[in-house]
Amino acid sequence: MAALADVKTRRRSDYNFALEYRTRWMDNDMYDHMNNSIYYLLFDSVVNTYLINHCSLHPPTSTSVGLVVHSNCDYMSPTGFPATVDLCLRVNKLGKSSVTYEIGVFERGVEEVKAVGGFVHVFVERESMKPGPKGMTDALREGLGKILVEKSKL
Amino acid sequence: MAALADVKTRRRSDYNFALEYRTRWMDNDMYDHMNNSIYYLLFDSVVNTYLINHCSLHPPTSTSVGLVVHSNCDYMSPTGFPATVDLCLRVNKLGKSSVTYEIGVFERGVEEVKAVGGFVHVFVERESMKPGPKGMTDALREGLGKILVEKSKL
Amino acid sequence: MAALADVKTRRRSDYNFALEYRTRWMDNDMYDHMNNSIYYLLFDSVVNTYLINHCSLHPPTSTSVGLVVHSNCDYMSPTGFPATVDLCLRVNKLGKSSVTYEIGVFERGVEEVKAVGGFVHVFVERESMKPGPKGMTDALREGLGKILVEKSKL
Amino acid sequence: MAALADVKTRRRSDYNFALEYRTRWMDNDMYDHMNNSIYYLLFDSVVNTYLINHCSLHPPTSTSVGLVVHSNCDYMSPTGFPATVDLCLRVNKLGKSSVTYEIGVFERGVEEVKAVGGFVHVFVERESMKPGPKGMTDALREGLGKILVEKSKL
Repeated sequence: MAALADVKTRRRSDYNFALEYRTRWMDNDMYDHMNNSIYYLLFDSVVNTYLINHCSLHPPTSTSVGLVVHSNCDYMSPTGFPATVDLCLRVNKLGKSSVTYEIGVFERGVEEVKAVGGFVHVFVERESMKPGPKGMTDALREGLGKILVEKSKL
Repeated sequence: MAALADVKTRRRSDYNFALEYRTRWMDNDMYDHMNNSIYYLLFDSVVNTYLINHCSLHPPTSTSVGLVVHSNCDYMSPTGFPATVDLCLRVNKLGKSSVTYEIGVFERGVEEVKAVGGFVHVFVERESMKPGPKGMTDALREGLGKILVEKSKL
Repeated sequence: MAALADVKTRRRSDYNFALEYRTRWMDNDMYDHMNNSIYYLLFDSVVNTYLINHCSLHPPTSTSVGLVVHSNCDYMSPTGFPATVDLCLRVNKLGKSSVTYEIGVFERGVEEVKAVGGFVHVFVERESMKPGPKGMTDALREGLGKILVEKSKL
Repeated sequence: MAALADVKTRRRSDYNFALEYRTRWMDNDMYDHMNNSIYYLLFDSVVNTYLINHCSLHPPTSTSVGLVVHSNCDYMSPTGFPATVDLCLRVNKLGKSSVTYEIGVFERGVEEVKAVGGFVHVFVERESMKPGPKGMTDALREGLGKILVEKSKL
């Protein structure tokens, strides 16, 4: 994972793909800001949208299943309902069977990043639930490669 | 509540306010469609956005608190992640201290309605948790009145 | 659905099956009580537990899929985190391909019911997504029949 | 945070406080296992239950508000609805204004740990939203100290 000192200064331009998401009433907990767990629901949403639309993954029937083995998030300052957020996505590492995503959460109209987190997907074959060519497929590798940020830019 | 026969043919033009919402990965349950409970999360989101932006309600500090005493939903056909949905809102009944909302859920690009539901809010005063002039305030009544559909159009 | 006047006085003894559920931090919204939508998440949980454990339904592979076509809930008084709730289940109607569940939500240590709601499941065959003998199976009918409340007791 | 090699072998006896939680239907995503984000909802639930019951925190009115500045989780093997899980809690670090929690997720009937994660709470004073004596109160420090695991045992 990228160091906290690095991610604190992330801007939208540090990412290669973005989706706008409207927050929901129940995203806020009783402290009236988005609960820490909701960020992970959003991470999953932007990543899976990218996998479906740009990597030919069809979750109900694809040969490949993505297992999350690690996730983490640093929270810089609060956001929450009724704000609209931009979920900005990049790939920090693309391995033989795994991929490390980084997502920056920005609030509409604010330049500074609200939170930066991500997770590691291991792509396994649906039948064996183990890595293999039907896990990290060529289509996945090609699609994910398009938003990979070279190490020097981390 | 409006009868099922009536709501089955609802169109976007039957409503007075609308918000576009992107669905999330976890909105789908294991049958790969939006779970029935998620519709209520969306109802709450469009209603509270309207209350905040058009009725001067500020949930953390307003004198008024909206208590949900009844909710219901009819599901016509499935939608789900990664679709975008239009949440269309109207008020079917505006009483002395309560309001009955109806929400139509439409999928982007589809004319037929996916689900129609709603709920009843009783506005109470935060201090006493009972109805009163600081519950259903003038600002609430005025804002809600703007999207009230006359009985003849139900 | 049963009339509001009837369900307001429900007691645990009016139901045939019960599960205890611990509430979660995020069940509460910013008014510090369980949000109206969370009740439906709980309804789904007690019903599906019953279907799996007492009706031989195995959601990922069963020939039968339960589609929710209607749901509703009446909220009598608030509960919420960190309370423990008893979810009490009965079947109010058992049709050829559909079933109407009623769930009473009780707070641990309190006799009066907090909320009563339910939903209608239409069981369809997974392949055609239409009703048929592999939709409402004999195992489903037999299991559901065990918690059916005769009309005279509604 | 504790290293992955260490947390992979965690057992229930490595923790000082535990709560049993029943999983819910919507905890599973379409891969039929508990979604990675749900673990964080559970972390919040066991931590806040401990804070309320053992550290005199009353979220709606306490002078102290806990802000989550970091969270993370390692997933060893899947669990999900309808399993019951034990959420086991310890404090790994107790600072002047912050606390680092570790939670182990165990499935009822299984000795091996399913996932280990946690988060960092910074306790701030509600009025200023900055650290101070009304943020990390004596009651919080005392309660959290009771489940602090000495460094040598990490």
